[in-house]
Amino acid sequence: MVSSNDSGKSYHLACTGDALDTANAHSTPGDITFFGSCFCPFVQRAWVALEYLGIDYHVYEVDPYKKPAELLEVSPKGLVPALKLNHYNAPRAVNESTVILEFLEDVASGSTQKSLLPPVSDPYARALIRLQCDHINRTLVPSFYRYLQAQELDKQVECAKEFVESLIGLVKLFERAEKESESNVGLWGDGGVLSLADVMAGPWIFRATNVLPHYRGFALPSGERLGAYVARLIAHPAFKATCSTEQLYLDSYERYAHNRPNTSQVANAINSGRGLP
Amino acid sequence: MVSSNDSGKSYHLACTGDALDTANAHSTPGDITFFGSCFCPFVQRAWVALEYLGIDYHVYEVDPYKKPAELLEVSPKGLVPALKLNHYNAPRAVNESTVILEFLEDVASGSTQKSLLPPVSDPYARALIRLQCDHINRTLVPSFYRYLQAQELDKQVECAKEFVESLIGLVKLFERAEKESESNVGLWGDGGVLSLADVMAGPWIFRATNVLPHYRGFALPSGERLGAYVARLIAHPAFKATCSTEQLYLDSYERYAHNRPNTSQVANAINSGRGLP
Repeated sequence: MVSSNDSGKSYHLACTGDALDTANAHSTPGDITFFGSCFCPFVQRAWVALEYLGIDYHVYEVDPYKKPAELLEVSPKGLVPALKLNHYNAPRAVNESTVILEFLEDVASGSTQKSLLPPVSDPYARALIRLQCDHINRTLVPSFYRYLQAQELDKQVECAKEFVESLIGLVKLFERAEKESESNVGLWGDGGVLSLADVMAGPWIFRATNVLPHYRGFALPSGERLGAYVARLIAHPAFKATCSTEQLYLDSYERYAHNRPNTSQVANAINSGRGLP
Repeated sequence: MVSSNDSGKSYHLACTGDALDTANAHSTPGDITFFGSCFCPFVQRAWVALEYLGIDYHVYEVDPYKKPAELLEVSPKGLVPALKLNHYNAPRAVNESTVILEFLEDVASGSTQKSLLPPVSDPYARALIRLQCDHINRTLVPSFYRYLQAQELDKQVECAKEFVESLIGLVKLFERAEKESESNVGLWGDGGVLSLADVMAGPWIFRATNVLPHYRGFALPSGERLGAYVARLIAHPAFKATCSTEQLYLDSYERYAHNRPNTSQVANAINSGRGLP
């Protein structure tokens, strides 16, 4: 069933704006083939990390609903993001956005020396960032989809509250890290540097400034510090480089906002009350 | 409602067997207070890592249904495992079993030099282990609880299949790592050393050899290599040191097997179709 105000817009198949410029600058085959879809937030995570860590890659834009054989070779579930590593003689691939981020962090530690985590000599500071990541993956991200896919008004109100609570929960973890850490605590603090948690949360926080306002009338909870954080995150060069123009997201998320059948494996998981794929 | 063949046994409040010996050997307050409950598999993960990595700790056994104030101070959700770090002047704590494991790995890298991961100079080998961890956390562990909590026979059959599939999925990832990695691939291979994935999966695989056979007539899928892996895992000194005697697990899991109301936050999450807390 398609709801009456569903205009039937479909997802985009190519980046626009800054993201298009970045993709064009990474169109030459190299050591890493980066399979992605322009509107996918899990893909954006990996992309921001590639940009920030300064790792060479080549963009392979994928239609996630018509998966090319090249993707299925490297991603058993046919999910993006996926990395194909071309400097091995045999096929080698990394999937799952969180695993890809850790992989890129490890790769950078041996090459560009850039990092999304405090130094290993400060295990507690790293744990504070990882606690944020855990909250983002298990609470913030699922609550975003439950909210966007909710169709009945009372359900939308309930899910909006839950999404706001998950954001406030993240802010509390940011404040805790700021207070308890002596190392890099991410973009939350003035002068902070991009962290693994910023990269993990960023794509959904960004969509909470365009997709959610458009389809759900959502506004970020008030608070000067949260507003400043979100602005700093979205303006960060590594993040901005992966952003398309707003219309791409609005068009691409209409299928979620109307909870069209078989919108995606993520949408199906939310509808069936299962963990995300 | 309590089902008619529920004998009303309750969870234990103290370790037995090898685990009791280990707890007694770690009863002197030191740098790390380790809050745990003797039957909890999430706790066992952290405990195996502490033992394997050779990090000093002091066991604080907690009744998870009557949470002491000392636990609530360091664990906002009142969940075990939790680590209190006593070498700081202010309160410092780490929660969430997966975050604790990464934290202990980082601590060990600066002290005992033991590790649950291949060296950072082999990022692909590390990614292969992390892919296993991702599967364990998002598929294997939830499917264990769905199976144990299922009450109707047809539901139990369906959940048994799903649990077996998740085990086979893990075996495939083990085989992939063995084939594609040049570093430590965990206990799966002959002569392998304990990996982060072995520690993450171990407590549920162990309970699949005692709790599931007792309450669900479950048998591990056949296959010589899987049987050898499970035997090697359970006999590993760091794992064995954290195991109580079988009766403790059988008694402690009766509440799950009969899906008694408010068995735990984990059980409630499974019943409501939400992600684990």
